[in-house]
Amino acid sequence: MEVQSRFDGQWTTDWEGKLAKRTEQMQSSVIRELLKFTMLPDVISFAGGLPAPDVFPVRAFQEACAWVLRHDAQKALQYSPTEGYPPLKDYLIETMAKYNIPAVQGNILFTNGSQQALDLLGRVFINEGDKIITGRPTYLGAIQAWNVYSPQYVTIPLDDQGMRMDELEKALEANPDVKFIYVLPNFHNPAGTTLPLERRLRLVELAAQHGCFIVEDDPYGQLRFEGEDITPIFTLHKENTIYLSTFSKTLAPGLRLGWIVAPERVIAKLVQAKQGTDLHTSTLVQYLAHDICQRGLVRAHVKKIRRVYRERRDVMLQAMEEHFPPSATWTRPHGGLFLWACLPGLDTAELLKIAVEEKVAFVPGHAFFPPGSDDGRNCMRLNFSYSRPETIREGIARLGRAIKRMMNETD
Amino acid sequence: MEVQSRFDGQWTTDWEGKLAKRTEQMQSSVIRELLKFTMLPDVISFAGGLPAPDVFPVRAFQEACAWVLRHDAQKALQYSPTEGYPPLKDYLIETMAKYNIPAVQGNILFTNGSQQALDLLGRVFINEGDKIITGRPTYLGAIQAWNVYSPQYVTIPLDDQGMRMDELEKALEANPDVKFIYVLPNFHNPAGTTLPLERRLRLVELAAQHGCFIVEDDPYGQLRFEGEDITPIFTLHKENTIYLSTFSKTLAPGLRLGWIVAPERVIAKLVQAKQGTDLHTSTLVQYLAHDICQRGLVRAHVKKIRRVYRERRDVMLQAMEEHFPPSATWTRPHGGLFLWACLPGLDTAELLKIAVEEKVAFVPGHAFFPPGSDDGRNCMRLNFSYSRPETIREGIARLGRAIKRMMNETD
Repeated sequence: MEVQSRFDGQWTTDWEGKLAKRTEQMQSSVIRELLKFTMLPDVISFAGGLPAPDVFPVRAFQEACAWVLRHDAQKALQYSPTEGYPPLKDYLIETMAKYNIPAVQGNILFTNGSQQALDLLGRVFINEGDKIITGRPTYLGAIQAWNVYSPQYVTIPLDDQGMRMDELEKALEANPDVKFIYVLPNFHNPAGTTLPLERRLRLVELAAQHGCFIVEDDPYGQLRFEGEDITPIFTLHKENTIYLSTFSKTLAPGLRLGWIVAPERVIAKLVQAKQGTDLHTSTLVQYLAHDICQRGLVRAHVKKIRRVYRERRDVMLQAMEEHFPPSATWTRPHGGLFLWACLPGLDTAELLKIAVEEKVAFVPGHAFFPPGSDDGRNCMRLNFSYSRPETIREGIARLGRAIKRMMNETD
Repeated sequence: MEVQSRFDGQWTTDWEGKLAKRTEQMQSSVIRELLKFTMLPDVISFAGGLPAPDVFPVRAFQEACAWVLRHDAQKALQYSPTEGYPPLKDYLIETMAKYNIPAVQGNILFTNGSQQALDLLGRVFINEGDKIITGRPTYLGAIQAWNVYSPQYVTIPLDDQGMRMDELEKALEANPDVKFIYVLPNFHNPAGTTLPLERRLRLVELAAQHGCFIVEDDPYGQLRFEGEDITPIFTLHKENTIYLSTFSKTLAPGLRLGWIVAPERVIAKLVQAKQGTDLHTSTLVQYLAHDICQRGLVRAHVKKIRRVYRERRDVMLQAMEEHFPPSATWTRPHGGLFLWACLPGLDTAELLKIAVEEKVAFVPGHAFFPPGSDDGRNCMRLNFSYSRPETIREGIARLGRAIKRMMNETD
């Protein structure tokens, strides 16, 4: 192999000129960019959406690897059908039944985390200009997944019980051609709110009346610390709802393993879309997850992280009482990973700069609003799952100092 | 949770009416559909593109799992940056250097197998109606990945040395607005051909002259059984080439782990596209692959499968001499997983029906031609990597019987 480059240096490709139009809609996620810089060792980060690594079920993974590679290696390392590993579906069918979610083999598809589920939904349903309803604020990853398909966002404000149904009704009347409504009913990211049953019933009714379907994104549903489980939207109207969930929060996000539950003909289309995208989700990952599930270790682990996260939430709420100014307000989530705090009169994007000087980080609220919106500038999302209690206390104290510094500067 | 379905049975969603226009381009892969039905236990299948499961490096995976989960579990199970795990990139940089492919951390991106690389390229570069050049035949997965972006395919015939450069030149002159040229230079899937150096040099020249870039898909490059390695296209003009490869054939396809090498500004755009698609490739899978690589076990494994696949190719070629009619022709690949056989006068789609009665399967050649083409109807792709030698002998004998039966019927 003697021949070397023939044209390098002489001929330069106009790569930018060759990009597809949809790339104009692609931006690096604010959160992921932040994550990089808040991973400096002495910064306490409330910015990410990371599960607590100190309680990952490592022993369960060790046992699963040993078992799968001893008994099933030839299958676990091979190509596998796009639809996913049937025994893992059996486990999900059984688990979801406890939440009254009816599922069968034919209406489940595995994805590379919920992010891929959101992308596949965009790919299968969104034409340029289609109207989609989301909350205001809403999950940033959904916006990032869908922007490349160029929808129009119609946004509905949230209150402390989640999406407002009176506002949803108005929006549906003003926009008779909405394709779907995207909701995060349990422990909303970023708002920390939970949609009560009456609102879920009304949502199902409004969607059916206006001929649009519902996308129910439920990554945190199992992580309830207090109160009673509320009937999933999928259960209320399974023929008109697409349900998303994931192992990222209950087992480990590094697996990239989520799933979609939807009517069989929707799953059939999503399977075709996924085939073209990446053939299938890692066979090995599906086998490992299944082995851990069938030993009952996911259920045990969920019980443990409920306890751990609840303590961390309580520590954060208590520290906020102590260190945040009286003008501040925040949600008190009954589960999940996040809470949402608002500081009237303070621009949280500016605050972040001071906070980083104080070695603490969060995500400014504006990041969670669909393009074109000017909301959330006084708010922030705080993650309470990742850091240990003593670190949370110290981090909130630092954040309190940053807020005081900024308020003094503003005065 | 007492409330049950409110509308199910009363209200039916018009799902088909809600599908995006691009779903018209989505079809289940012929190969994947075939795979399902050829996986019946008594059918000998030459249809899939499956590596030999009997030689998967199971022990290496066992050791890697043990090491990674003992020493790096908290990181291996957590979210990770889209760009990928730097130590695994270091290994690839070193390995690719042996093939004269210059790479650095900033110009590599991990993907969920090469299939996701193809999808991301479509997403970042293809506008509706853009012209793309592919071979005739070409890799089916690329067509499946790109169809949803609605390009126009300009196709170039292959001879026994791969894509014909005289035909490529004519096509570029007739189509001055081609965006990129897609080639599989080593052990082409499905054709089994390898592009000689003179053609690679001419390809690089033609692409530069006509202002289009090259996508070099190289899943099998390391699986050469005989002859000398030929300089990669990327090496000849790295500023105008995007290089794709994968661990699917050298380690295990069930991982779903591939990679892209491209100019840094192209990688930056692909990273944004991948963030919206699935955040990142499984962290655990990247850590396991790295551990196996750094122990030198991938190199050892590649040596082993070269030996195993070479034997299987030879067995298949010999059995074809014995059982195929004198009118048949086929390629004699110097590496890879596939060969391509043509049977003048026989429709291989019809032949497949008889073959399945004889309990043997292959992929009819027509499946590998871009939409609109009527070629390949007398040809078939045969995989020689998956089955053991004695099974290959028996399978080719069965296929010979099927061919004779069909020739007798046709007479």
